[in-house]
Amino acid sequence: MKLSFGMVGGGNGAFIGNVHRRGACADELAVLKAGCFTRNPEKNRETAAAWNVSDLSRVYGSYQEMAEAESSREDGIDFVSIVTPTDTHYEIAKCFLNHGIHVVCDKPICINTAQGLELQKIAEEKGLAFGVTYTYASYAVIRQAREMIDRGEIGEIINIIAEYPQDWLIVSTVAKKSDQALWRLDPVRAGGSACCADIGTHLEALISQMTGLKLESVLARFTPYKNSPLEHDIQVLMNYEGNVPGMMWASQIATGSDCGVRIRVYGDKGSLEWRHTRPMELLYAPLNEPVRILTANKEYCYDACTQQCRLPAGHPEGFYEAFANVYRAFCCDLLARKGQTVPDGLRYPTVADGIAGLRFTEACMRSAQDGNVWVVVS
Amino acid sequence: MKLSFGMVGGGNGAFIGNVHRRGACADELAVLKAGCFTRNPEKNRETAAAWNVSDLSRVYGSYQEMAEAESSREDGIDFVSIVTPTDTHYEIAKCFLNHGIHVVCDKPICINTAQGLELQKIAEEKGLAFGVTYTYASYAVIRQAREMIDRGEIGEIINIIAEYPQDWLIVSTVAKKSDQALWRLDPVRAGGSACCADIGTHLEALISQMTGLKLESVLARFTPYKNSPLEHDIQVLMNYEGNVPGMMWASQIATGSDCGVRIRVYGDKGSLEWRHTRPMELLYAPLNEPVRILTANKEYCYDACTQQCRLPAGHPEGFYEAFANVYRAFCCDLLARKGQTVPDGLRYPTVADGIAGLRFTEACMRSAQDGNVWVVVS
Amino acid sequence: MKLSFGMVGGGNGAFIGNVHRRGACADELAVLKAGCFTRNPEKNRETAAAWNVSDLSRVYGSYQEMAEAESSREDGIDFVSIVTPTDTHYEIAKCFLNHGIHVVCDKPICINTAQGLELQKIAEEKGLAFGVTYTYASYAVIRQAREMIDRGEIGEIINIIAEYPQDWLIVSTVAKKSDQALWRLDPVRAGGSACCADIGTHLEALISQMTGLKLESVLARFTPYKNSPLEHDIQVLMNYEGNVPGMMWASQIATGSDCGVRIRVYGDKGSLEWRHTRPMELLYAPLNEPVRILTANKEYCYDACTQQCRLPAGHPEGFYEAFANVYRAFCCDLLARKGQTVPDGLRYPTVADGIAGLRFTEACMRSAQDGNVWVVVS
Amino acid sequence: MKLSFGMVGGGNGAFIGNVHRRGACADELAVLKAGCFTRNPEKNRETAAAWNVSDLSRVYGSYQEMAEAESSREDGIDFVSIVTPTDTHYEIAKCFLNHGIHVVCDKPICINTAQGLELQKIAEEKGLAFGVTYTYASYAVIRQAREMIDRGEIGEIINIIAEYPQDWLIVSTVAKKSDQALWRLDPVRAGGSACCADIGTHLEALISQMTGLKLESVLARFTPYKNSPLEHDIQVLMNYEGNVPGMMWASQIATGSDCGVRIRVYGDKGSLEWRHTRPMELLYAPLNEPVRILTANKEYCYDACTQQCRLPAGHPEGFYEAFANVYRAFCCDLLARKGQTVPDGLRYPTVADGIAGLRFTEACMRSAQDGNVWVVVS
Repeated sequence: MKLSFGMVGGGNGAFIGNVHRRGACADELAVLKAGCFTRNPEKNRETAAAWNVSDLSRVYGSYQEMAEAESSREDGIDFVSIVTPTDTHYEIAKCFLNHGIHVVCDKPICINTAQGLELQKIAEEKGLAFGVTYTYASYAVIRQAREMIDRGEIGEIINIIAEYPQDWLIVSTVAKKSDQALWRLDPVRAGGSACCADIGTHLEALISQMTGLKLESVLARFTPYKNSPLEHDIQVLMNYEGNVPGMMWASQIATGSDCGVRIRVYGDKGSLEWRHTRPMELLYAPLNEPVRILTANKEYCYDACTQQCRLPAGHPEGFYEAFANVYRAFCCDLLARKGQTVPDGLRYPTVADGIAGLRFTEACMRSAQDGNVWVVVS
Repeated sequence: MKLSFGMVGGGNGAFIGNVHRRGACADELAVLKAGCFTRNPEKNRETAAAWNVSDLSRVYGSYQEMAEAESSREDGIDFVSIVTPTDTHYEIAKCFLNHGIHVVCDKPICINTAQGLELQKIAEEKGLAFGVTYTYASYAVIRQAREMIDRGEIGEIINIIAEYPQDWLIVSTVAKKSDQALWRLDPVRAGGSACCADIGTHLEALISQMTGLKLESVLARFTPYKNSPLEHDIQVLMNYEGNVPGMMWASQIATGSDCGVRIRVYGDKGSLEWRHTRPMELLYAPLNEPVRILTANKEYCYDACTQQCRLPAGHPEGFYEAFANVYRAFCCDLLARKGQTVPDGLRYPTVADGIAGLRFTEACMRSAQDGNVWVVVS
Repeated sequence: MKLSFGMVGGGNGAFIGNVHRRGACADELAVLKAGCFTRNPEKNRETAAAWNVSDLSRVYGSYQEMAEAESSREDGIDFVSIVTPTDTHYEIAKCFLNHGIHVVCDKPICINTAQGLELQKIAEEKGLAFGVTYTYASYAVIRQAREMIDRGEIGEIINIIAEYPQDWLIVSTVAKKSDQALWRLDPVRAGGSACCADIGTHLEALISQMTGLKLESVLARFTPYKNSPLEHDIQVLMNYEGNVPGMMWASQIATGSDCGVRIRVYGDKGSLEWRHTRPMELLYAPLNEPVRILTANKEYCYDACTQQCRLPAGHPEGFYEAFANVYRAFCCDLLARKGQTVPDGLRYPTVADGIAGLRFTEACMRSAQDGNVWVVVS
Repeated sequence: MKLSFGMVGGGNGAFIGNVHRRGACADELAVLKAGCFTRNPEKNRETAAAWNVSDLSRVYGSYQEMAEAESSREDGIDFVSIVTPTDTHYEIAKCFLNHGIHVVCDKPICINTAQGLELQKIAEEKGLAFGVTYTYASYAVIRQAREMIDRGEIGEIINIIAEYPQDWLIVSTVAKKSDQALWRLDPVRAGGSACCADIGTHLEALISQMTGLKLESVLARFTPYKNSPLEHDIQVLMNYEGNVPGMMWASQIATGSDCGVRIRVYGDKGSLEWRHTRPMELLYAPLNEPVRILTANKEYCYDACTQQCRLPAGHPEGFYEAFANVYRAFCCDLLARKGQTVPDGLRYPTVADGIAGLRFTEACMRSAQDGNVWVVVS
């Protein structure tokens, strides 16, 4: 039995909508059955046709209508994917939750922690799943890393260094181009933060999923690009539970960088390193031994890694598959709730991770505003 | 309007069947409507259900039955994907061609050149498209390379160095494991060649698609692994038109290698290099200038590259997308034949490339057998 | 005419003494003529013999005696290299300066800024040269980088990211080995700082020599390893003149790292990156163009780079040659003072850079102690 | 006690003369005492002065005079380094051997095998050492590789792939520049081969030193650049003892390459890879385990590797040190002959390796001339 799902957003050509859709469908666990892809009726229908929505009566003019109608049908959607700009997430997610429909929401899940906690409360009360696409930890070898950390293979963690340089903002600015992503620069729509909310939270989520450690406090410096009202470069000192220091740099103005996520976790018996530019590789340096290059889906990988792979070792998987891994874990959760047998041990980021991301951003904003002081991440 | 397609093979869990299916569906140009996925009826139906074949009456017990039935339907499939072992390709492809159905066939397209020429003849007579999944040239940056070569950016080509090391054969042998791929080691089913027919032809196809050059003669050495009746390592000297020397090494026993395709094309004004382990990058060394790392989907890329990309620069695409590019070009060809407007300049390997691969293999086999002498690739 | 020089320290087998000696002699500008290599008389003589000191009467039992005697000789040494532990630098350097002898001193030049300023004052009053072996900026391609920055090729600098991970401290601790370098862990001998004074200052010096920018303030976090009284990991936010943010991480406990110096300088028109693990390469990313890999001693390099090279491009030079470049520039300075014609534009770190290093360390120590607050680097 | 040595050649500014000199002196085992650096008397004296030859009466106008005089002195040189163009090696080496002086000669040691055998005969009769600077195997990690192979860590060797791409010939040709190295293109002076004799032999020597295997036969293709009378690109199939296949590519016209030596040795239990562009690293891929990056001078290295290192791990050594390793082993051999205790197990290429190089070149030349047929390397 397959799940059915709907989508809100995705109809205006932003690439991320299609990434969600392909991710949800990749493993044939779910079928797109409904949608409100855009407020433009024609584009809405076109998108539905392109994406094989078989019953056009399930293409809706508003998300409210969609939630209403789908929750009333016997064969209504099991879950909705929300891929609209950040400032609309809260209302849309709340609406579907209130209609008893599970939710996958792009990150950040909303504008502030208060909203996030409310969404969490509703999801809990209703017993609904709430997935968030903090995707990087779903690359197969990050699961390998987590398993190795859990087994003590790098000993006690003593340091975490993470970075995420991009240059799209400076490219766009110089090129004076219109850019789909420019809503991210609108202080209101973006929730008061550009770089931190957009990519800083990706790093924070990656760290916590990869290590299992909880963030306790931050000291952040925000730097705008020229006269921008928002920050486009963040440098953050972090404290994780157990007095583990961490350092993060994220930037939208790092000329020459695309999606250069890189994370290094140092333990007293070894270290692990992952780079998004070589996504299938994990570097493992046991103390006093040669560095080892682990690659995904080799026999020596743990199941937690292997079960995230779809192709034989040596065949590169990428961003689509990382996304698909989030959706697979989410769908398996829903299928398990329906009593089906599904693979064990799959994880996906939940509303709790979404809230952690908001708390991180808010703490960083406060730290930056107060002159780079330590702020507890409550 | 979307195309509909069927599949022969793919139902026994070999990964490549699903890669074909995902490739064909990736850009929403085609929908899987029919299939004969395996001779096991139960698995056949299960596969159809898993892969969203909506009408189970279009799941067939034999490919002959499928060709017959589909060619009789008004809404019959536009094309069939053939993903069975090599020795069955010829009969299956011939059957569908004779029923007027376009074909995509995995490589090698059949066992020998004579069969290949016959398939080509039928396709031509019937006016049918025949695609072959020599996939590596469909990575986006290989198209960038071809465009650069065509524009003279590396000058006159003076040398070509290509390699494809794998180690699965030695791994499987040592591990004494059953392995799906073991039919490739059966001299009969594999057409008398293991390494050359399986991966050597991939290199040959990559070279000719990347450079546009035609192979004229080869001198090949074949090395078996221990007592194998087939070769698992090939070293080939090549002559391309215009007296361009080339050298190729392919191996199934290169311990520690996965799918290490690497190609370097040297011109008198510059050189180009591509490695499958970093699939989104193309190295370009203009004479006497710094080496440049071109990455897919950047503004500086030519359209021929950019139109092969689905994600913003920096988001890794991989093997699935390379496959999807073959299918996209094939589907666009069919759509154009139906009068639809489609992107310009998309290319896919055809039956002619399939025949070139067979000729290459046969010439190498003869050279190896005759003591490593030059053999014309007729 | 060649310079003659002497050495204080180097006789107890520490590798750095020999690196200084080889550096000083590499380009045949100077000859070792005198020394006080160790307080052990036998080892002192053995070292002198091994290092070709031709006149054993110029092997001294104390540096004071050496300064006295050499300054009295007509053919006395032109300069002295001081390669002893940090806490002895001040007295030794002062002694030689007061005897009118030029000085090259290992870094840090002394224990605190007050001492440094005094050394600077004496050197200035006496008109003596004072070189410091902050070596990393003497790799050839760093000079290329500086020239590119000075010519505006990366535009206005907007960000600086630097790191220097090592793991020797954790290796030594775990292995419970005696280690020559352990004086660096003695709070008194090391001047109150381990990681910051030892390698953090290397990064600071590299940044200022590579960019030409002056450091204005720091916010530092110091982390000890387990119960050590000193810090072995530093994370520093920096402000350079013109509001340029910088970030630095240096560590002696980064398991799996050797001398992983890496610096990235971002401008609004391009960026530059250098890694000590690939010392002959400079990565240059012009905005919106492919990343370029510049290598040392190619025709496209600026003279400032090329004159730091000794071998044709493609022949790796390394740490010895970087050191030799410091000494070559220093010797050329002395030769120019003597009226000889020498290459133009050679630079070496001076006592001013040594003082900058001390100020950096002191500001970081204060910031760390005061709870990670901004401290002006006066 | 130190050895004393002289040099023939090196006075006309060719970089390799100074590399020999620095190599010979690097470890303070030998001192330059005599020379005939060039036939130009003034330059001869200048070179001697620059290189610290203390007694100018030992600067000679001809190598014959030098051999005569030095062999007559009580304190005459122990060995001579010959760094002149290839076609002069034979006469010079013979002269010094006949005067009872040990020899280090640049490669190729002479023009043909007959000459080489004669030199070998004289050296043996006189009981003299004869070193040849096939340098690449003296990089520290190549010794690590050899030790691992000897211990069976990669099992039985089943394949060898080697390459050495350069582009200096094409760069020089295009730039129409005078170039010191152009004697290498004169068929007479270069001994009838350009690429094969110059760099092909480097690969052959590297393979045999790294693996311990003996070459039995070759099949070679030679390609000239445009109208050159000599070959500038060679592609060679090789057979090593025990039916081990090998493949080699060397080129002087590989646009964009400097000294890109790369060697991969495949065994049935693992493989090893080394690249000159990352000279301190050895890649080791044990069958079915992650690839390991071994770096020089780490605790896990074998003594055979560690004793080739001068700096702590992480401090890059390069081409000078590889050369110095050849000289160190050679000097230790001489010192051992004088009864001094020296490190055990140091190896250097001898006249036998020089002859192997000549035989390799001659066999390749014959194979190329006869239409790419197998030729036994006698």
